[in-house]
Amino acid sequence: MLIFVGLGLYDEKDVTLKGIEAIKNADVVYGEFYTSRLTGTHPEKLAQILDREITILPREEVEDGRKILADAEKRNVVLLVGGDPMVATTHVSLAIEARKRGIDVKIIHGQSIMSAVCGLTGLHSYKFGRSATIPFPYGDSVSLTPYEVIKMNKKVNAHTMLYLDIKEEPMRISAAVRILEKMEEKVEEGLLDDMVGVGIARAGSMNPSVKCDYVRNLKDYDFGPPMHVMVVLADKLHFMEAEALRILAEAPKEIEQMVE
Amino acid sequence: MLIFVGLGLYDEKDVTLKGIEAIKNADVVYGEFYTSRLTGTHPEKLAQILDREITILPREEVEDGRKILADAEKRNVVLLVGGDPMVATTHVSLAIEARKRGIDVKIIHGQSIMSAVCGLTGLHSYKFGRSATIPFPYGDSVSLTPYEVIKMNKKVNAHTMLYLDIKEEPMRISAAVRILEKMEEKVEEGLLDDMVGVGIARAGSMNPSVKCDYVRNLKDYDFGPPMHVMVVLADKLHFMEAEALRILAEAPKEIEQMVE
Repeated sequence: MLIFVGLGLYDEKDVTLKGIEAIKNADVVYGEFYTSRLTGTHPEKLAQILDREITILPREEVEDGRKILADAEKRNVVLLVGGDPMVATTHVSLAIEARKRGIDVKIIHGQSIMSAVCGLTGLHSYKFGRSATIPFPYGDSVSLTPYEVIKMNKKVNAHTMLYLDIKEEPMRISAAVRILEKMEEKVEEGLLDDMVGVGIARAGSMNPSVKCDYVRNLKDYDFGPPMHVMVVLADKLHFMEAEALRILAEAPKEIEQMVE
Repeated sequence: MLIFVGLGLYDEKDVTLKGIEAIKNADVVYGEFYTSRLTGTHPEKLAQILDREITILPREEVEDGRKILADAEKRNVVLLVGGDPMVATTHVSLAIEARKRGIDVKIIHGQSIMSAVCGLTGLHSYKFGRSATIPFPYGDSVSLTPYEVIKMNKKVNAHTMLYLDIKEEPMRISAAVRILEKMEEKVEEGLLDDMVGVGIARAGSMNPSVKCDYVRNLKDYDFGPPMHVMVVLADKLHFMEAEALRILAEAPKEIEQMVE
C-alpha cells in the first residue's frame, strides 16, 4: 500500500490526525520536499514530533519511483509531502504506476495554498481562473505563459493565482514582479500599469503577510520570509471582495472603483 | 481574538495539530456546520475526540455575528467550520467585522475540496477555470450560471469545478446532471452530448469514489453517500491527465482522443 500524506502549508503542526495515524501504522515513512516545502519547520523536527524515522528521498528517487514502489508492493509505505498531495505531477505519476502494479493507493489530504489564499484575502474562490507559475528566467529567455494566463483571465473577469518558482530558492514577490515587467517588455503591451494584485507570504503560519496594491508597488513591500504567492485581480470586484481587501490586505482606497 | 479553525473534508480526524492546539487554548468553542458539512462524523464525536464542549451555532447567529463578536472582544473564541475557513462569504463578513472592531483574527486552514479534487483525479490544478455551484431548482426557474461558466471555460480549454448545493440535503451527482440537462433545454445548445466529467464522492475519506465518463452517463453511476462534487473536463487533456483518469477514475477508452 502507498499512502500519500499531505503535511499542509507551513510547519510540523499542519498535519492532520488522520495523517498522524497513517504515519504511526506505516512500515516505512519517506519524505519528499522538493516539489513543495514547509518553511516553518525541518524534517528532523517533524520526525521528532511524529516520533518516527523519516527517510528523505532525493528528487531522482521520487521521479524514478522504483524504490518506493518496490517497497509499497510488500508493505505499508507512507510518503510525506508538503501541501496537499498529487498537486505535483510527480506524485500523480507515482500513483498511476502504483495502481498499474496492483498497489493500493490512498491519499490523506493536507491544507493547500489554493484555498488558503481565498481565506487570507477574502477573494471569492469561484472567481479564480486558470493559474500559472512564474519560473526563474533562464538566461535571457523568459516564459510568457503567466502573462498570457493573466490576460486571458482578465477577459472573463477572473483572478489569476500565480505560484512562484521554488527551484533554486523560494522566489519572492519582488522578484516575481520584476519578471512580470520583463514579460511586459517582450509582449509590448501595457497591462501592468493598471494591474492590481495581492501578495501573500507564509500562508498557514500564525503571522502571514497579506498586502494588496498595484502590482508594481508590491515590489517594494516587505513581505518578510517565504513562501510567497501572488494573485493578480480581475478588473471587476464583488463589493465584499473590495471590502475584504481594504480590511484584511490594506488595499489602497482606489480599489473601491473596481467594484462592479 | 477570533480564530477560525478548518476541520477539513470528512471526519473528526481531518483537523490539524495546530487546530487542536487552538481548540485546547480557547475560552469558548463554537461550531458552524451549515456552509459546509463533515459527512463522516457528527459534532458530538468531534467534541468527544477534542475533549471540549462545542456550541453549535444556528445559521442566523453566524450571519448576524453579534454573539460571536461580543465574545471575541473579551476572550479567545474558536469557530470550527468544515473544509477550509473563509471560502464561505459568511466567514469573510465575520472576519471583516471583527477586524473593524479591533479584534485579532487568525485562520487555521483545513483541507479543501479545491485541491483534493486534483489529487483524486490527477487533473492539473492550473487548468481549472472559474468554478460554479449547481443550486437546487427553484420551482420552474433554473440558474444558467453553471452552464455559462462551463461554456466559458471550454473556450479557454479549462476544467470546471462544480460544487453541488447542500441547502436541503447534499445534492448528488445524478441530480446535478439532471439539472444540467434542464439548463441545456433552456439555452437550446448541445454541449452536453460531448461533455465528459468526473464525479467525486466522499473526498477526504479512506474510500472515496471517483468516476470519469460522459456527463450524461454519470447520472446512472452509483457514487454512494455524499458529499458529491463534479468536474466538467476541458476539451483537450494533457496526456498525463488522460492516463490518470483511465487508471484512477476508470475513464472510458475514448478519453485518449481528447489528448492534445
